[in-house]
Amino acid sequence: MPFNKIILAEKDIPRQWYNLAADLPGPLHAPLGPDGQALKPAMLAKVFPMNIIEQEISTKRWIDIPEEVLKLLSLWRPAPLRRALALEKFLKTPAHIYYKDESVSPAGSHKPNSAVAQAWYNKKFGIKRLTTETGAGQWGSAIAFACNLIGLECKVYMVRISFDQKPMRKTMMQVWGAKCVASPSQDTASGREILKKTPHTPGSLGIAISEAVEDALSDESGSSRYCLGSVLNHVLLHQTIIGLEAKKQLKIAGEKGPDVVIGCVGGGSNFAGISFPFIYDKIHGKKIEIIPVEPTACPTLTKGPFTYDFGDTAGLTPLLAMYTLGHGFVPEPIHAGGLRYHGMAPLVSQAAVKGLVKPRSYDQIKCYESAMIWAKTEGAICAPETSHAIACAIDEAKKARQEGKKKVILFCYSGHGLMDLAGYEKFLSGKLTKYALPKHKLKKSLESIKGLPKIR
Amino acid sequence: MPFNKIILAEKDIPRQWYNLAADLPGPLHAPLGPDGQALKPAMLAKVFPMNIIEQEISTKRWIDIPEEVLKLLSLWRPAPLRRALALEKFLKTPAHIYYKDESVSPAGSHKPNSAVAQAWYNKKFGIKRLTTETGAGQWGSAIAFACNLIGLECKVYMVRISFDQKPMRKTMMQVWGAKCVASPSQDTASGREILKKTPHTPGSLGIAISEAVEDALSDESGSSRYCLGSVLNHVLLHQTIIGLEAKKQLKIAGEKGPDVVIGCVGGGSNFAGISFPFIYDKIHGKKIEIIPVEPTACPTLTKGPFTYDFGDTAGLTPLLAMYTLGHGFVPEPIHAGGLRYHGMAPLVSQAAVKGLVKPRSYDQIKCYESAMIWAKTEGAICAPETSHAIACAIDEAKKARQEGKKKVILFCYSGHGLMDLAGYEKFLSGKLTKYALPKHKLKKSLESIKGLPKIR
Repeated sequence: MPFNKIILAEKDIPRQWYNLAADLPGPLHAPLGPDGQALKPAMLAKVFPMNIIEQEISTKRWIDIPEEVLKLLSLWRPAPLRRALALEKFLKTPAHIYYKDESVSPAGSHKPNSAVAQAWYNKKFGIKRLTTETGAGQWGSAIAFACNLIGLECKVYMVRISFDQKPMRKTMMQVWGAKCVASPSQDTASGREILKKTPHTPGSLGIAISEAVEDALSDESGSSRYCLGSVLNHVLLHQTIIGLEAKKQLKIAGEKGPDVVIGCVGGGSNFAGISFPFIYDKIHGKKIEIIPVEPTACPTLTKGPFTYDFGDTAGLTPLLAMYTLGHGFVPEPIHAGGLRYHGMAPLVSQAAVKGLVKPRSYDQIKCYESAMIWAKTEGAICAPETSHAIACAIDEAKKARQEGKKKVILFCYSGHGLMDLAGYEKFLSGKLTKYALPKHKLKKSLESIKGLPKIR
Repeated sequence: MPFNKIILAEKDIPRQWYNLAADLPGPLHAPLGPDGQALKPAMLAKVFPMNIIEQEISTKRWIDIPEEVLKLLSLWRPAPLRRALALEKFLKTPAHIYYKDESVSPAGSHKPNSAVAQAWYNKKFGIKRLTTETGAGQWGSAIAFACNLIGLECKVYMVRISFDQKPMRKTMMQVWGAKCVASPSQDTASGREILKKTPHTPGSLGIAISEAVEDALSDESGSSRYCLGSVLNHVLLHQTIIGLEAKKQLKIAGEKGPDVVIGCVGGGSNFAGISFPFIYDKIHGKKIEIIPVEPTACPTLTKGPFTYDFGDTAGLTPLLAMYTLGHGFVPEPIHAGGLRYHGMAPLVSQAAVKGLVKPRSYDQIKCYESAMIWAKTEGAICAPETSHAIACAIDEAKKARQEGKKKVILFCYSGHGLMDLAGYEKFLSGKLTKYALPKHKLKKSLESIKGLPKIR
């Protein structure tokens, strides 16, 4: 009987994170302050604790995972590496399809990998309370979960439309002791101002970020900080445990390594997690195709320019060097809520600039069709975000069949879809359509970056 | 660093199920037909395939698990045995608390253990389509999942009130290709009759069973059969893989065996799964306390008599020898939907009669409070049913502290609560109250068994 999964023992969990900043060819384009000058770490000290800021700017290749963080991670890690034998059979492919199952965390996605690390560093620095924003709710529930375990207060600003459409996400956060409010809220000056002008606004990630940052900064005791679940270097760093585990597991499975590595991309965190350790191999001469997959509705890497832009809609954050659709981008309400961000993690962006990763975009119909094939073969119901990676893995497995090559395909199964069944319901009842961002909309949203510094 | 979990390799998955019927002391009280005479297997042949009927009446101790069933089970099995280190620390108990994590199946509970076996035996017998009922939706989604993998059509009659309150359960079943209708439905004569009399009825498990059985029997091609997710011997048999794995894992953990084994009970399937292999040990001289935990709202084992009663509300099924509240029992709408059955599996009932298990009942407030302690210490959100087992494990761990004994406590973590967050929402907002079945209600529902045969 061929095996379905490779499970590492707890003692084999990686002891260090891998930092791609140590190995990316060419200069790193650092964030800029509001004056267009390179940002100084001290300027961030009211937003993040200094131990996180040090990680954010580090170019050290390996960074130790604190023993206490390992202990928390091992509640669900090492995560299984599974082989999709039934899908392979269904596709009649000679390819071996492996997926790293990050749905096994209590919050149901890869997000807790960074959430527990961030909560731990904040606690260690003496912080008592974290604020954050959440869109679809994956990050909000992950940080609520982490703060609960570590003993921090937690306040989550959840985009109003998600708050109303996904009440169970709020309940999850409450079970874990977090306070979750709809954004815009009455709890901040920026929220109140927006509510005065547009009382019925559905909210946006940009507004929620503004509220969470304002909340942290306005705590006069100085014991609140802000945190976020993707984009920044330290978040991506924490996720590399995914790829590092997968590397060990592929070896146990007797594979020489992956020929293709795939992850869905929104801000970039699960993709970075699965791929960065293999980008290291690629830089050092291995032939690996590495594919970030985004929705055609939010084609940041495939259609956007690589330039400086704000991380949020309101323009409150530092300027980041990244692929972007412009911070004025207003996403369509497609269901892969985690993949609707206008920008892209700077490290992922710079890997794309150097040709180390080859982005691709898929529309939501193809993705849900792939999710249905997955459910019918492998049995599990995946998150709408994850379906993008599955769609690409299926394409690559078909290609391997056409080429007659026994390729090894590895992708990140970033989360389960049990909290997102409303999207499946819409797909099954024919209420979803294909959607690709039209040129005129892209042109319009790119107007928001006019006048911002260019990358030199 | 102490370990959090023991994970068996796929090759160590048990190859046989354990059949308690081989070892229960005293005579087995067989089911009776409508005439009060012992039921003949052939009388069930239109309802179940003969290979399942053979399993149902078998008294063989070990029954081989077919290789193809093992292959399907190994999509998620062996399930982890986890140690609740953080809960132990929180309770300051010298006890070691272990739990068998059955929430890792794609449907989120232990139910697929029997669903894939039942679907496989039906397919092997030439059956093309299964019908069943579901209350809270755990069993309906498990059988939809299994039929999807094995290639059977599937029709699920879901109790109307659950169908309306839990639309996402229906979507889950649809993703897995099953047809799910609200019961009573227009699809059966019994459904139509009830709708004519009471068009706004919330439905009941009894009605749904009647519809599912009628549907299977009325398929003139003879290729439909009925199936169910608990109570009967063959269902309990399939679940013993839980306890058999746990036994191997406790040995790896260096424990001599459990001192206490706990499971929640509705129909009895997850409790049988975790406990039957240890009841074998108890029969053979080991000192083990084995505790089935039921809600005070549905106190079958703790308040009901042991007698013959129908398995359904309408009185269409054979008479089973079991603890029962009477088939006329109307459960209160507490949230542990899986624990609201009026009867109890005959094998579990007979183990209770012989004193091999010591039942206990808990009210829902104590259970939700325990679920909150669990979320705050171990991190995961449990199913409302599972919270009953957790509440008992906490009590036993406190008792061990008082006695100063290093006991080994094992319980079955039967499922996660991500599809049942509405119950948590009600608990957190103070809308739930304590509830125990009042004596006059019990007396009234026991009237329904008057005139039925007694156990000799």
